[in-house]
Amino acid sequence: MDTPRIEGAEALIVLAENRYGKSRVRLVRVKRHADRHDFSEWQVQVLLQGDFTSCFEDGDNSKILATDTMKNTVYSVARDTTAENIEEFAKELVEFLLGKHSQVSQAEVSVEQKMWEHLAVQGEPHPTTFVNSSGERQTTTVSRSQGGAFSIVSGLENLVIMKTAGSAFEGFIRDPLTTLPEASDRLFGTAVKAKWSYKASELDFSRLRINIREALLEVFAVHNSKSVQHTLFAMAEHVLNTVPEVEDVELTMPNKHCLLVDLSRFGQSNPNEIFVPIDEPHGYIEARVTRQR
Amino acid sequence: MDTPRIEGAEALIVLAENRYGKSRVRLVRVKRHADRHDFSEWQVQVLLQGDFTSCFEDGDNSKILATDTMKNTVYSVARDTTAENIEEFAKELVEFLLGKHSQVSQAEVSVEQKMWEHLAVQGEPHPTTFVNSSGERQTTTVSRSQGGAFSIVSGLENLVIMKTAGSAFEGFIRDPLTTLPEASDRLFGTAVKAKWSYKASELDFSRLRINIREALLEVFAVHNSKSVQHTLFAMAEHVLNTVPEVEDVELTMPNKHCLLVDLSRFGQSNPNEIFVPIDEPHGYIEARVTRQR
Amino acid sequence: MDTPRIEGAEALIVLAENRYGKSRVRLVRVKRHADRHDFSEWQVQVLLQGDFTSCFEDGDNSKILATDTMKNTVYSVARDTTAENIEEFAKELVEFLLGKHSQVSQAEVSVEQKMWEHLAVQGEPHPTTFVNSSGERQTTTVSRSQGGAFSIVSGLENLVIMKTAGSAFEGFIRDPLTTLPEASDRLFGTAVKAKWSYKASELDFSRLRINIREALLEVFAVHNSKSVQHTLFAMAEHVLNTVPEVEDVELTMPNKHCLLVDLSRFGQSNPNEIFVPIDEPHGYIEARVTRQR
Amino acid sequence: MDTPRIEGAEALIVLAENRYGKSRVRLVRVKRHADRHDFSEWQVQVLLQGDFTSCFEDGDNSKILATDTMKNTVYSVARDTTAENIEEFAKELVEFLLGKHSQVSQAEVSVEQKMWEHLAVQGEPHPTTFVNSSGERQTTTVSRSQGGAFSIVSGLENLVIMKTAGSAFEGFIRDPLTTLPEASDRLFGTAVKAKWSYKASELDFSRLRINIREALLEVFAVHNSKSVQHTLFAMAEHVLNTVPEVEDVELTMPNKHCLLVDLSRFGQSNPNEIFVPIDEPHGYIEARVTRQR
Repeated sequence: MDTPRIEGAEALIVLAENRYGKSRVRLVRVKRHADRHDFSEWQVQVLLQGDFTSCFEDGDNSKILATDTMKNTVYSVARDTTAENIEEFAKELVEFLLGKHSQVSQAEVSVEQKMWEHLAVQGEPHPTTFVNSSGERQTTTVSRSQGGAFSIVSGLENLVIMKTAGSAFEGFIRDPLTTLPEASDRLFGTAVKAKWSYKASELDFSRLRINIREALLEVFAVHNSKSVQHTLFAMAEHVLNTVPEVEDVELTMPNKHCLLVDLSRFGQSNPNEIFVPIDEPHGYIEARVTRQR
Repeated sequence: MDTPRIEGAEALIVLAENRYGKSRVRLVRVKRHADRHDFSEWQVQVLLQGDFTSCFEDGDNSKILATDTMKNTVYSVARDTTAENIEEFAKELVEFLLGKHSQVSQAEVSVEQKMWEHLAVQGEPHPTTFVNSSGERQTTTVSRSQGGAFSIVSGLENLVIMKTAGSAFEGFIRDPLTTLPEASDRLFGTAVKAKWSYKASELDFSRLRINIREALLEVFAVHNSKSVQHTLFAMAEHVLNTVPEVEDVELTMPNKHCLLVDLSRFGQSNPNEIFVPIDEPHGYIEARVTRQR
Repeated sequence: MDTPRIEGAEALIVLAENRYGKSRVRLVRVKRHADRHDFSEWQVQVLLQGDFTSCFEDGDNSKILATDTMKNTVYSVARDTTAENIEEFAKELVEFLLGKHSQVSQAEVSVEQKMWEHLAVQGEPHPTTFVNSSGERQTTTVSRSQGGAFSIVSGLENLVIMKTAGSAFEGFIRDPLTTLPEASDRLFGTAVKAKWSYKASELDFSRLRINIREALLEVFAVHNSKSVQHTLFAMAEHVLNTVPEVEDVELTMPNKHCLLVDLSRFGQSNPNEIFVPIDEPHGYIEARVTRQR
Repeated sequence: MDTPRIEGAEALIVLAENRYGKSRVRLVRVKRHADRHDFSEWQVQVLLQGDFTSCFEDGDNSKILATDTMKNTVYSVARDTTAENIEEFAKELVEFLLGKHSQVSQAEVSVEQKMWEHLAVQGEPHPTTFVNSSGERQTTTVSRSQGGAFSIVSGLENLVIMKTAGSAFEGFIRDPLTTLPEASDRLFGTAVKAKWSYKASELDFSRLRINIREALLEVFAVHNSKSVQHTLFAMAEHVLNTVPEVEDVELTMPNKHCLLVDLSRFGQSNPNEIFVPIDEPHGYIEARVTRQR
């Protein structure tokens, strides 16, 4: 059966936007050097936009690149690439897809990289053994339209950090629904999600990523924080001040609260020592900081 | 210590966009009628935009409504509300927040509802016992600017469905990287995420939600599917054809593949009976279907 | 390199217990009847015990059935089986593995079944469309030694239920660390995990499962609960009283707390209407109830 | 209503085993030294056994320590403890609970510790800023009966490691259902779960944990692996050979497969470079290795 339609109505309904692709294409790449191996684990998403109306409206698949073929493409390109980082690999995939498929108007490739390091054995990195060293993920999203320029937005996710000094939250609005006490010295924990856009597409992405990540972390550590917002802005500002290749920085920093336990009920003091960390609810702070044009 | 700054550089860096609020505020509401109880479980997110630059740039919290106060607001409003559904409750919260806080330029409230039903005991719904009947979630996001009109986008997530007949995928591009065989009869499974925007803000949201959900499911069941895209469009189209209060429909339908197991290696046939369901990779299909203006 | 050993020490170290197998072997089975399809989704785990010491100690794989072969076995047996339920399928796999591999002293097969139902379209179940109707899972673990009898322990997991009346918790110990108030009327929510062992191996497992699940749920609904323990015991007792084929019942019932929100700070009452559900911490109650021998 | 009972039947049904307690009690402890802070995050579970039959069978709560009180106990003891590690803290909690509550016959406390490290800023560990450095968790379960000795079983979970050389799997059974090729050089990835029992209860648990973890990892790195079983045994054996305080070691090492991608279809070779990592299905290998008595 086909879709039930109300007579005369269907002409008024149109496809506004669409995109499709393949998600969670996982990939391990081992580079076998004489003295050591390199090990990378990536997860890739490919999304295409283009003239696919006939597929949606009429079931005509003649312009459709199967998502299974996208998966094959990821593996095939991974075999031959010389990319040193996820940005270069994503660019290569975008180029490949746009070049082969003229009906595709825009291709977007996102790559997430897990954190693997050489395992230390008796103080030395072992050449062929690795440990998944963090839940943090390095990300990039590269897109391009046919004939257009690359857009490269890199980032990181789930960078879980905490400061136990240099954080206050005071002077906020007190209204009849406010019960939160002022805090001149509180724990400040978050799981940073960062995205930054590059001004150009031919850059040393590996080095820049290290510099940007260090800039974010250094400010988080040393900032005299009056709020999550205050520190978030300072972190983004420092990236822009120290890394000229970056156009803007978007940070999402949930406030992962640690609640001071009231031990006075048991005749005990609690001088900021024992806390209950909670996952929910959590504060949510998000901002984009940019260069003035 | 304050943020390290490069001399003379800081004036060029500005806050472009920001929003903040409270996420994962969970809430159970029990309505105690004489003959039965009603039980609802909601998860609320509040996000505010406004003139908060001094907080980000200077650590001035005087315009900041603490996210803890937002949490209190959710509970206080929940106690007094007569809202019958998540849309009405979200509207009420938005109104409350905009009314109390003139520095807030826009308030957005999202609510997710879990699926709880009266438990059947000996064939009858028990008046005060409930079962979490599905992993599906009902959603809404209501936003409004000071002095503006409500935007109401409702939806559902994680509606996991499967059809074992009436689904094909044929005639797609065959290139050197294509290995997927044509399929005239395949399994089609997905976890629907739907969002629809309402044309007005005073509507019978409870009834409309039932109608929209049924419209989506009916087409999924009966459609003669030539691709995920084809069925997605038909589902959205049917909502727009049968529910005039809806302006547009956005559907995200991952293709949760079931792979036919090759049993010929063991001398067995497999006439579309035994499959391996996989979570990754998965096809990703997303489109917005709207009324032509 | 081989393992560094301390001279003369290694003879004193022995393999005490071991088992190995394949986990998370996922399987969809479609039965294609003339008037409708049946749809099942199972996840299988196979675990073998036996004389595998030479593999562990010396790297001799000659007695090792590859776990990949176990996966193939699951699919091959699934194709030919006439099993109507997970217990019969697990028995069949156990038989197959013990019969083919004399070095295996014991085989254990666990199967989890997801909840899929025919989707209702205009009030009627659609013959070839299905909805994943709950996060609950039906389980069984079947084991047998060479020459021994079957042990069959079936169960269910993640049956999330709630009662809003007929639940109290009073008269517990009050000591200096006790702050919980007595509650004559509280919410009682849990996610039941149940396991029951059958007295025999040739039973109508499909019907028995329905009866046992209903017995558990009926008591949960109607019991006048003085504690989670009290209701847990009554639920298990009712299964044993009404289903003679069951030898014992083990129930794990976390107390998924709903905390009454203190609204008095905002000048509002809260007559058991607005609660915060929390995932952590949670009470943990576990007991096994059996027939006296 | 009380539980429906079959006349005369109830005397035959008895409580066989039971335990109850509190799970997922989360705790952050900050130690504020002059030159730096220490930061620990623990998750605690308390389980009690004892004479609680009257609670289960009759709803008599007079012997019941509320699980909420257990939670308070965790926080109160955490405030005063001088414990340097999770083992000492768990021992202290067990002592406290057994000492206060004579109706408790056995107390068991499990603690999980997350991995937090001082954040490096410009190459130096920052004294009051921390990063969650791994998804690995350090664990212990301490139990004791009234008047009995401590049982201390420590461990770790989710230690995700990979070796890209020195791993083969050959010479296993080939039967009609075997399709896995022999592999003389394969990737070997796993997420180690380890448990080891200590011979005594007064030990330097912090140092021992470091030594045991290093022993496990060193063997994983350097072992010439003929199977997961082979390496698992060697890892456990090395712990027992180098740490005399340990009585036995239980290791669970799922085989997290990385499948070599067949690129020959696209005219490409794949000399062990490009793999697909999969989460399911996975091999499951578990063994306990002990000293001969």
